Amino acid sequence: MSRIPAPWLKSILLTIYPKPAITRDEIIRATGLNPASVSQALQHLLSSGTVLKVGELKSSGGRRREVLKLNPEAGYFIAVDLETARIRYALTNLVGDIRYRWEQELEFGRGVDVADLLHGMEMVQRNLMEWQSSRLLAVGISCPGIIHENRRVTAVNLGWHKFPLAEKLKEATNLPLSLETACRAYVLAERWLGCAQRVDNCIYIEIGRGVGAGIVVDGRYLEGQDHMAGEFGHLTIDASAADPCHCGKRGCLEAIASSSGILRQYCERVHLSKVEKDRLRLGDVFECARENDPVAIAVIDRASHALGLGLSHLIVLFNPALIILGGDLLQGEDLLVPRISAALASHTPEFVKKTKVSVTNLGLDIGLKGAAFLAFHNAVSHPDLIRKLCAPVVETIAV
Amino acid sequence: MSRIPAPWLKSILLTIYPKPAITRDEIIRATGLNPASVSQALQHLLSSGTVLKVGELKSSGGRRREVLKLNPEAGYFIAVDLETARIRYALTNLVGDIRYRWEQELEFGRGVDVADLLHGMEMVQRNLMEWQSSRLLAVGISCPGIIHENRRVTAVNLGWHKFPLAEKLKEATNLPLSLETACRAYVLAERWLGCAQRVDNCIYIEIGRGVGAGIVVDGRYLEGQDHMAGEFGHLTIDASAADPCHCGKRGCLEAIASSSGILRQYCERVHLSKVEKDRLRLGDVFECARENDPVAIAVIDRASHALGLGLSHLIVLFNPALIILGGDLLQGEDLLVPRISAALASHTPEFVKKTKVSVTNLGLDIGLKGAAFLAFHNAVSHPDLIRKLCAPVVETIAV
Repeated sequence: MSRIPAPWLKSILLTIYPKPAITRDEIIRATGLNPASVSQALQHLLSSGTVLKVGELKSSGGRRREVLKLNPEAGYFIAVDLETARIRYALTNLVGDIRYRWEQELEFGRGVDVADLLHGMEMVQRNLMEWQSSRLLAVGISCPGIIHENRRVTAVNLGWHKFPLAEKLKEATNLPLSLETACRAYVLAERWLGCAQRVDNCIYIEIGRGVGAGIVVDGRYLEGQDHMAGEFGHLTIDASAADPCHCGKRGCLEAIASSSGILRQYCERVHLSKVEKDRLRLGDVFECARENDPVAIAVIDRASHALGLGLSHLIVLFNPALIILGGDLLQGEDLLVPRISAALASHTPEFVKKTKVSVTNLGLDIGLKGAAFLAFHNAVSHPDLIRKLCAPVVETIAV
Repeated sequence: MSRIPAPWLKSILLTIYPKPAITRDEIIRATGLNPASVSQALQHLLSSGTVLKVGELKSSGGRRREVLKLNPEAGYFIAVDLETARIRYALTNLVGDIRYRWEQELEFGRGVDVADLLHGMEMVQRNLMEWQSSRLLAVGISCPGIIHENRRVTAVNLGWHKFPLAEKLKEATNLPLSLETACRAYVLAERWLGCAQRVDNCIYIEIGRGVGAGIVVDGRYLEGQDHMAGEFGHLTIDASAADPCHCGKRGCLEAIASSSGILRQYCERVHLSKVEKDRLRLGDVFECARENDPVAIAVIDRASHALGLGLSHLIVLFNPALIILGGDLLQGEDLLVPRISAALASHTPEFVKKTKVSVTNLGLDIGLKGAAFLAFHNAVSHPDLIRKLCAPVVETIAV
C-alpha cells in the first residue's frame, strides 16, 4: 500500500464511486493514469477487499475484462441532516446505504446545541461492530440556512446566528467533517443517485418550511461571489403583496409558498381559536382543499402560482435541462403539481420550454444521501483516511 | 517560425493579449511553458515585430527584465455589431482600437441580407493599405436574437428566422468568422476592457429595443442546456399585466422596460396623431419626464421598477459581484438609475446586498470591441492565421 501514491488511489476511488460497475479500461480512460499504475493500484484494492470483482465480460478479441465495484462495507460515514423540524442521523456504508438511523424531533423555538448533535451521532455510531469502527471515516452534515466563513452557521429555526458549528464539533470528535447547505447536499444526492444522474444543468428546489434552490451549471455547483447564490425563496414574487418574510422584505416566494406561509395565509382567512391554530398542520390544509374548501384551494392556488412563476424565472435565466422538486410540500403533490405546471406554462416563452420538471424520488433520505456523498469526497482527500479505507476488509456484512 | 509550435505561440499570444504590458517571467508563469520554449518563441515574436519591447525593469539582483506588449498593428479584424436599428462596422487593430468605421441605418421592417453585410465589410476593408491587407485575420460579429445550431440566426428586427448567416458569409468571404449573441459579446468586452476586468461573477444587462443579459459565473459564460440562458427580458415581471410581448406572453420585462415598450406605453396614455406617434423617439419621452410630464414620469417609474425588480432576481439567484447596465435606455440614466436603485434596494434581502451596479463606460463601441475580442480568440486557434500574425511587420502606423 505504502508504495501506491494516495493521489492514484483517490482518482481511482472517485471514478469507481458513482458507478454500479466498471471495467479496468474505463478506469484507465477516466483517470488518465497509465495502465501499469491502474493495475498496480487495483491489485492492492482487490487484495484488500476495498474493490470487488463482480463479473467478467468477454470482448470480441476473446480477452477477458473484469467488472469491478466498490465494496460497500469498506467504509462507513455518519450522515446528519439538520432539517428545520427534526434532525436525522444515519450510519451509512461507503455507497450511501443506510445501516442505522436515529431521529430527534426539534421543539419549536428551543434551539439546538452541540450536545444534541453529539448524542445523535453517538446513537448511530454505537451500532458499529468493532471491525467496522476502525473503518468509520468521516461525518457529513447537511445544514439549513447560511454557512459563513470559518463554517459558522446562521439558521433561524435552529436558533443559530453565526454559530461556530464546525469548530465546536471539531473539539468534540476527531472525525473529519463536511458541512454544506441543504440545497447543495440535495442536488448532489440527485446527481449521484436520483433523477439528475448525467444531467449537467439542473436545479433542485426545496419547498418546505423554507424555499431554496441548489443550482448546477455545466456540472458545477453555483456558489456566487459570497456563496449566497440560489436564494430562490427570497425572490420578490409578488411586488404588491403584504406577506411578511423573515428576511425583512414583503412578497417573497418563501412567504407565500412555504409550509409556514401556507399555514399563515390559511389562518388569516378562516376563524380559528388559538388552540386550533396551534394544532393546524400543512396536511390539514391539503385535506381541506381535497374536500373543496374554497379557502384552502385559494391559498394553494396562490402558492402554486407563485412557485410556477418562480420556476419560469429559473428556466428563462438558466435554461436548465431538469428541475427537481422536493420538500414537505410535496405531500400535496396531487394539488400542487398540476397548478404549478399551469402557471409555469403560462409564464415560460415557447423557445425555452424544453426543461423537464420532476418530483424527487429520493424521499426523506435525500439529505442523508447528500451528506454521505460529501463525507466520501472529503475522506478520499485525506491520505490517512484512504489508508483506513484500503486496509484489508476482514469481514463483510451481507448486503 | 516553422520550428516554433503553434500551440506555444497561441498560449503566449493569449497571455499577452489582455495586458497593457507584461514581463517574460509573467508569461512563463501564466503559460506553464518551460523558460527555453518561451525564450525561443519570444525571440521570434520580437524579431518579426509581432511583440514589442516597451521598457525594462531592474529587479533587485540587478537582472534586467524586459517589459513586452503586443504590436497593435500586427493584425487587423473586421468587427460587425448587428444592432436592431443599425449595423456598425469597424476595422480594428489587434488590440481592438478602431481604425475605420462604417454604419448602415436599418429601415424598420425591411430586413437585412448578406449583400448588405458584405457591402459594409467592404467599406471598412478598402481603407487598408496593401501591407495591412495581408494581416487581415478574421471577422467577428455580435448579433441580436438567438443563434441556433449550425450558426443559424433568428432576429425579428433583422427579418431573420433561422437564417443561415454563417453559411452565407462563408460562401462570400474566405475570412474565418466568429458569431456570438450581442449580450455575450458585450460581457466579454466588459471583462476585457470595461468595468468587469478581473471580476469572475458579473452580469451585463442590455436595455435597448430588447432587454437581455450576458451572465458570467466563475469566469465562464453561462450558456444553459440549449444555449438559451440569460433571456432576462422574458422574465414575467408583472404577472397581472396585459403588456404584450413579441414572445407571445404578457407582462415580460422587455414589454415594459425596453425602448419600444416605453414608447408604446407613452402613446397608449396620451392623445397623439399617427404622424406624431411615428415621430416620437425615446429621447422625447425622457425630455418630457425631465419637464415633469406626469405621463412620461409614470411610464419611466413603471419601467424602472420592473428593471429594479428584475435585477433583484439576478442578485438573489446568482449573487454576482457586479452588474453592468448598458443600451439605448441609458440616455435617460439621470431618470432611470435612481429609480432602478430604489426598486432594487426594496426587493433585495440585506444578506445579499453587496452586489455593485454600474453603468458601462464602453459607450456605443461595446459590440465592436466584443466582436474584435471574439475574432482575436478565433484567429489564434488557426495555425495559418498565427503564421500571418507572426510574419515580419514591415511598417507600423503611429498609434
